[in-house]
Amino acid sequence: MQLKVQPIDIKVGKYKVVLNTIDAKELGVYEGDRVRIKDHVTLTAIVDFTEDMISPGMVGLYHEVQEQLQREWTETVEVEPAERPKSSRIIRKVMDGFKLERDEINELVKDIVEENLNDIEIAAFLTATYIKDMSEDETEWLTRAMIETGEKIEFSTSPIMDKHSIGGVPGNKISLLIVPIVAANGLLIPKTSSRAITGAGGTADLMEILAPVEFSASQIKEMTEKVGGVIVWGGATNIAPADDKLIKIEYPLSIDPHCQLLASIMAKKGAVGAQKVVMDIPMGAGTKILDAKTGRKLARDLISLGERLGMDVDCALTYGASPVGRTVGPALEVIEALKVLETMEGPNSLIEKSVALAGMLLEMGGVAARGQGRDLAYETLKNGKALAKLKEIIEIQGGNPDVTHEDIKVGEFKADITAPANGYIIEFYNKRIVQTARYAGAPNDKGAGVLIHKKRGEVVEKGQPVLTVYAEKKDKLEDAVKFCRENPPILVEGMLIEKVADLREL
Amino acid sequence: MQLKVQPIDIKVGKYKVVLNTIDAKELGVYEGDRVRIKDHVTLTAIVDFTEDMISPGMVGLYHEVQEQLQREWTETVEVEPAERPKSSRIIRKVMDGFKLERDEINELVKDIVEENLNDIEIAAFLTATYIKDMSEDETEWLTRAMIETGEKIEFSTSPIMDKHSIGGVPGNKISLLIVPIVAANGLLIPKTSSRAITGAGGTADLMEILAPVEFSASQIKEMTEKVGGVIVWGGATNIAPADDKLIKIEYPLSIDPHCQLLASIMAKKGAVGAQKVVMDIPMGAGTKILDAKTGRKLARDLISLGERLGMDVDCALTYGASPVGRTVGPALEVIEALKVLETMEGPNSLIEKSVALAGMLLEMGGVAARGQGRDLAYETLKNGKALAKLKEIIEIQGGNPDVTHEDIKVGEFKADITAPANGYIIEFYNKRIVQTARYAGAPNDKGAGVLIHKKRGEVVEKGQPVLTVYAEKKDKLEDAVKFCRENPPILVEGMLIEKVADLREL
Repeated sequence: MQLKVQPIDIKVGKYKVVLNTIDAKELGVYEGDRVRIKDHVTLTAIVDFTEDMISPGMVGLYHEVQEQLQREWTETVEVEPAERPKSSRIIRKVMDGFKLERDEINELVKDIVEENLNDIEIAAFLTATYIKDMSEDETEWLTRAMIETGEKIEFSTSPIMDKHSIGGVPGNKISLLIVPIVAANGLLIPKTSSRAITGAGGTADLMEILAPVEFSASQIKEMTEKVGGVIVWGGATNIAPADDKLIKIEYPLSIDPHCQLLASIMAKKGAVGAQKVVMDIPMGAGTKILDAKTGRKLARDLISLGERLGMDVDCALTYGASPVGRTVGPALEVIEALKVLETMEGPNSLIEKSVALAGMLLEMGGVAARGQGRDLAYETLKNGKALAKLKEIIEIQGGNPDVTHEDIKVGEFKADITAPANGYIIEFYNKRIVQTARYAGAPNDKGAGVLIHKKRGEVVEKGQPVLTVYAEKKDKLEDAVKFCRENPPILVEGMLIEKVADLREL
Repeated sequence: MQLKVQPIDIKVGKYKVVLNTIDAKELGVYEGDRVRIKDHVTLTAIVDFTEDMISPGMVGLYHEVQEQLQREWTETVEVEPAERPKSSRIIRKVMDGFKLERDEINELVKDIVEENLNDIEIAAFLTATYIKDMSEDETEWLTRAMIETGEKIEFSTSPIMDKHSIGGVPGNKISLLIVPIVAANGLLIPKTSSRAITGAGGTADLMEILAPVEFSASQIKEMTEKVGGVIVWGGATNIAPADDKLIKIEYPLSIDPHCQLLASIMAKKGAVGAQKVVMDIPMGAGTKILDAKTGRKLARDLISLGERLGMDVDCALTYGASPVGRTVGPALEVIEALKVLETMEGPNSLIEKSVALAGMLLEMGGVAARGQGRDLAYETLKNGKALAKLKEIIEIQGGNPDVTHEDIKVGEFKADITAPANGYIIEFYNKRIVQTARYAGAPNDKGAGVLIHKKRGEVVEKGQPVLTVYAEKKDKLEDAVKFCRENPPILVEGMLIEKVADLREL
């Protein structure tokens, strides 16, 4: 069918065109079908349908299709029904419980990266793998395919170190300490990190306060070779791009299929050339890992996948039922981390967790003897070498190396949340703390967050401040305080415990 | 956040708004999240994201949201993040393998009908039920919820008869014979039918050649009470509207979860008040039901769901490995059916299948004694009463009752497909026949289709016509012939059998 081109200058993130339902009927294409557009270039696109946006006889070409046609087309183009991509059948195979071959996984990941699949198909794939999981072979192939379909960094020296936190614990600013400790001891650690989606601040959100975080793979390589480490945003690179596209569909479903979780983590590590990796697996109420058994299984799976990929993986099950340190939210967390680097003053939970994990990396990297890693890490923090290294990292990423914790601005609006009764704090709800910080504006408003005065097990008196909420905007502070009053993030011994149904919701 | 309204006059079929990614980040909403729009009306909408279509500070309101705001809004509206609907958690529960409660299923179906769920969520639900199926209780509740969320017809007399074909066999024009046979014997049969999606012509596509097929539920009731039966398009009513919305997502995934199949069929029957129903379950290569075991299981499940709903269901496993009759495609099928009604001339497969199923209905409806149904049906066809009744039905639906098979126009372009060798026809590929008809333009071009001269088991000589392909457009005829040559729909004994891999694709 010859249709007249109508450019639609909207980015939709996929190769899509719009047909009037009358023409679609004539062509015999329905929801989720593809058409082939033939002009000086031939391409396949997913069809959207409209009764009003595009007239019969026209075909609307979204931005991405226009780009693929190099922004040149004749007045009318030939439009014909196209078969579904092979991946469509491969997904069906997963739904039917069959194992995939390696080339099928390659095909599928290629189509995900090239945006040849629609959201419905990717959702079916993720749901099926969530329910049925994948074999070790499949997970390995998936990881390799995710690495191969993106940019890769290859260093000429070794070892290349890396760390990853599974997430789920608020205030986990440890990468700001670990990366400089490791790099200060002569090891290379090209740390890519994420921004928060459901959290109050990812490492990339924090680091952005100190320096730019958006770099290409080759820039990451170059900077790491110069100063030993970087802390950048992985999302700005084209490293394991399949992962971002899967997360976009996982998020609305609130799922993270086990095999995807493994592949996602390990693909990002593999793509930057990491050889020795420490995994931080926070465990406990409010985290992703509710008990030690689940934590150990995840650890074993990560280690085994690492072996298959030629990567040395060590895992640490860490305490995750309370926030790490006493701050949640970008600026507050950066202040806390810098203060430790500058003065060694700060919460024990932050310092101990950081030196323990950094110590593991120092041992794995061969710069500390077995059993000596933690002490070397502590020493590196204490003697200022870690701070000096962080300044180098900040500088090479284009930030101001002279920054101190006093330069970091928090939100100008603040409010105290006080204890409702005398007693011990017996519960601390991570998710409510995070939610409070988010209502206050985190992670988008860098100055928003929560300062924690009292943690689990500490004694409070009625009326004493337990938390201070910071915000950059007055109405956001009000929202956060309102949320906090309605959903108290702490429980003091003797307080009326809320209905279990309520807690379960969070 | 106060955002300036920008109306977008496009129908998207859901309550959706568009935010610039900058504002979305500020609000903390991501892919698949909802926002609450507060103006003189408060509503919840799914968010789409754009970098270019809507400027920061603006919110784009699609057609459906504008309608919900009664097309009146102030210059700026308050936009805030909204929680996900309860159904979102209910879907997660299905994915996690838990059984649903009745009120959860009601909530879910309500949200599907009211378009509160996005495609990703519905795809996850369908994938999960495809993999895990539903219990009998759940399937019953699902069916009832699908009935209750749409229009219902309640007749004051009984019994109300109905028939349904599971589909998958080409040329199944039997409803054009069965409905008038049943109605001519004094029973009421308000037959709603579908249009073809992957087929060459649904009953609604066929009937449309004879009369209009789009009516409301109350018109269906009124017409049925007057003349005993109708043959209308179910899609034009608001009967079991959840079904259409689920099919829109099932189609791209090429799945039809067992529980959905049951609920979909029975909800449409239940909603029109059917009390006694015959199910035609075509079986054999190329149909949905590959063997008798699967067919019997489906029959048992339909009968058992019918019992739960107070509906009397009889099932017939029918031969489906070859087309019914010798025509595939709307006009050709109508000609074949009318010819049988007018002259009793026509293929045995069509006549026998129609009177067998009609006979079952006559017995169930109490107008034929046990074992006498088929003969009464045959007699009704032969003595012209069925034809007279069809004319009444055509007339009441607004068509011309004087139509004869000679008035029906087929496509003016035609081509013969000849036998490639001497011998018996040992295979007949249904899907290739359908595909040929579709390439020729069916079901949209009513005159397009395939006339079958020789069927399985018949002897052909090399060069003798086996099929004639009809089309309304010359280029479509060429496409169909090309497809047919590359994918021969028949196999003559002694012909080189193609690679199994190829056949499996179909």
